[in-house]
Amino acid sequence: METIDKAIKDLTAHLEPHQVISDIEILDSYGRDETSDLFAMPHALVRAESTADVSTVLTICSKHKVPVIPRGAGSGVTGGAVPVMGGVVLSMEKMNRILEIDTDNMTATVEPGAITGEIQNAVKAHGLMYPPDPASLDICSIGGNVAEIAGGPSAVKYGTTKDYVLGLECVLPDGGVISTGGKYVKNATGYNLTGIILGSEGTLAVITKIFLRLIPAPLYSADVLIPFDSMDAAMKAVTGILSNRIIPATMEFMEEDAIKLVSRFHSSNIPFPDARAHLLVQLDGGSPEAVDEQMHRVASVLDRDDDTIIVAQSGPQRERIWKARRGIREAIHAESPVFLAEDCVVPRSLIPRFLVSLKEYFTARGLTSVIFGHAGDGNVHIDILKGSMQKKDWDLLVPVLKREIYSRAITLGGTITGEHGIGCIRKDYLAMALSPDAIELMKRIKRAFDPGDILNPGKIFP
Amino acid sequence: METIDKAIKDLTAHLEPHQVISDIEILDSYGRDETSDLFAMPHALVRAESTADVSTVLTICSKHKVPVIPRGAGSGVTGGAVPVMGGVVLSMEKMNRILEIDTDNMTATVEPGAITGEIQNAVKAHGLMYPPDPASLDICSIGGNVAEIAGGPSAVKYGTTKDYVLGLECVLPDGGVISTGGKYVKNATGYNLTGIILGSEGTLAVITKIFLRLIPAPLYSADVLIPFDSMDAAMKAVTGILSNRIIPATMEFMEEDAIKLVSRFHSSNIPFPDARAHLLVQLDGGSPEAVDEQMHRVASVLDRDDDTIIVAQSGPQRERIWKARRGIREAIHAESPVFLAEDCVVPRSLIPRFLVSLKEYFTARGLTSVIFGHAGDGNVHIDILKGSMQKKDWDLLVPVLKREIYSRAITLGGTITGEHGIGCIRKDYLAMALSPDAIELMKRIKRAFDPGDILNPGKIFP
Repeated sequence: METIDKAIKDLTAHLEPHQVISDIEILDSYGRDETSDLFAMPHALVRAESTADVSTVLTICSKHKVPVIPRGAGSGVTGGAVPVMGGVVLSMEKMNRILEIDTDNMTATVEPGAITGEIQNAVKAHGLMYPPDPASLDICSIGGNVAEIAGGPSAVKYGTTKDYVLGLECVLPDGGVISTGGKYVKNATGYNLTGIILGSEGTLAVITKIFLRLIPAPLYSADVLIPFDSMDAAMKAVTGILSNRIIPATMEFMEEDAIKLVSRFHSSNIPFPDARAHLLVQLDGGSPEAVDEQMHRVASVLDRDDDTIIVAQSGPQRERIWKARRGIREAIHAESPVFLAEDCVVPRSLIPRFLVSLKEYFTARGLTSVIFGHAGDGNVHIDILKGSMQKKDWDLLVPVLKREIYSRAITLGGTITGEHGIGCIRKDYLAMALSPDAIELMKRIKRAFDPGDILNPGKIFP
Repeated sequence: METIDKAIKDLTAHLEPHQVISDIEILDSYGRDETSDLFAMPHALVRAESTADVSTVLTICSKHKVPVIPRGAGSGVTGGAVPVMGGVVLSMEKMNRILEIDTDNMTATVEPGAITGEIQNAVKAHGLMYPPDPASLDICSIGGNVAEIAGGPSAVKYGTTKDYVLGLECVLPDGGVISTGGKYVKNATGYNLTGIILGSEGTLAVITKIFLRLIPAPLYSADVLIPFDSMDAAMKAVTGILSNRIIPATMEFMEEDAIKLVSRFHSSNIPFPDARAHLLVQLDGGSPEAVDEQMHRVASVLDRDDDTIIVAQSGPQRERIWKARRGIREAIHAESPVFLAEDCVVPRSLIPRFLVSLKEYFTARGLTSVIFGHAGDGNVHIDILKGSMQKKDWDLLVPVLKREIYSRAITLGGTITGEHGIGCIRKDYLAMALSPDAIELMKRIKRAFDPGDILNPGKIFP
């Protein structure tokens, strides 16, 4: 009997029958995540219902040396949850409870499969806020957010997932369960295990419980949509606002091609459809006056008439001005199901230089590119659409484009991914961003956690 | 020739003569930090002046298997910089430059020996703020802060050192130099090495450069000193303020014995010297109105008349109300040069239960205890004074007290140290806070970084 069959037999013996799935049709949908053009069939699927289940799976798969691929909601875009080397997909989707919202300590204790947007709504009901807001928040799971250090528009003011994780319960590859923190902010007891597991993309441990830090929800906010004549002008506004010590809750950017694409897709009603760039600024605070005061300062930095911007303070108005930004991903998918999605980071003051030169590069080569994202924190989404290009040409082009984009980001003091991770689609480029010593150290850390290399193999490392 | 002598000879050959010091009188002062009652003589001292120097020291000491003890300003209180197993103390005091303050990106790039308070002042001149404020900020170095995840009063609102480190340049024990981040907030490129080096107490790598995140300085603030009739009442005020969604910049606490001790020491002029507890609340914001608004909400939570509190908005007033809190450490040293200094953490809502029961325990045993600290974030300083007790009785008592204090913190869901670290004085108690699996994992991480165990041996692990 094959190793994998022995492992599946053991799993079936130690878990409930309904938890261990070999049905090909079901397995098929666990062979992909939201990464464009990537699929690999798992040998089996286990749906964990408890920390003990996770421990059982890891103990058995360690014994049989079978790969285990932890999976949240499967909304990742770098193939982190795709079983590229086969094995057992360990789905956390059933461990999706919000275990506690502790208003006194302003913490939430959640299971990894809990949907991020649902956590946000649940804590909002208590006047609290869990700020990280990845675009996929209505479908993504908090465990995946932790595994990838998910960011989002609000990172400019509130930081990323990393800044809100107080502690984790995790299962190590040998089945041992560890706890790395709790309902407290300060911790100097031994190594910062929370820190190294954050962003480890399911390669070091399987997260089974998460202690989140919450903050008081800002009671008031306003959204402002500002059109610009050029990408450069929009980016100068970003640095202008920040250097005047105004920190908006979000500062989202879209360039001309992004605006045009969404306008076409929605075939109506996108404000300022002919602008060369949009900036979508959200200001928040504890009182209407605090928001107004920021608004006045933004207006004075921008030096614009009121009729050239849209300020939204009600639901439908907000809906209208966020429509374009929120619709980009869908518009890209509709336009070209295959596309390259990069999320480089550079020091934010260098974003104009980075993007203007990249756009020229793409345009000169006749490529359809769409640039948008988190201008305020230096993290931008650079998507190149395959469109009608032949697959063999596209496959040759992708590595060239990646090298070009990454090398420009690195030259400017940035790095190759800000919030999506390395996964399997960027691992061959890791050495562009990190020195051999750093990569070697990371491999030793991997071995320290997972000497048998069973956890999510084929990810991160070249 | 002894191994250590060979190492010193090699160091002398590869560094400038003035950098390698064997003079016993100088070495003597590098055999201690601010930990009570702890000394160990190093074999040699090297004062690094560059990353290359650090790499040279580690390469040579790795070759000869000689311990290297990285040292910042020596202001730690858990023996982290004390060469308990001999070897070479590697002082970073000469690498103390603020290399850059980048106002556009709101970052500072500093060397590890830079004094934290000097960094704060330098960035303040640009309207920026580096929030972490350990009590020792006028003398402690930023490298030590990173190595210990130093906190301070402002952690309740602004977090600790951990929340402001964007990236590090470090030298690994084999002499290799790595870089873990830069002037950007978001980073999902490989493992979060910054995260694991933070708080590793000089046992994993030697930090040679630090990229710090800065924030706009709040322009206005007010300090309020509030006396209470009981420790419990003070603590209830803390939870009351926070649960009303007011997050003060600091919320410092002192109980009766702390107030009395400082009053005696200063022999004058401590406000409310007869109170059973003090709460020192700092409110800050972008406008006087924002501060006033918080002040009104605090007053309404406290339900107190204006004449029972002191509000300070000018320098001398502030000086007066902070005098007691700032003077505690000095008063303790003066009263009893030998003392036990603990800094446990519990979920902040449980601080009343934790402290009231501990105080009863100490009082019942006739012990002089002083409790003060960061009530807002659940991190309190619990000092027990030796006073005139016989040394042999004290030495027997200390482990008993530690176990008692730690077990109470752990039972309440907290941990044994919030900002001081494990060092060498708490390593025998690590197993109270962490499971065998977690400790074993930390040891494997240590070996992944430092297979020869040359970096700061005898720390953290039992």
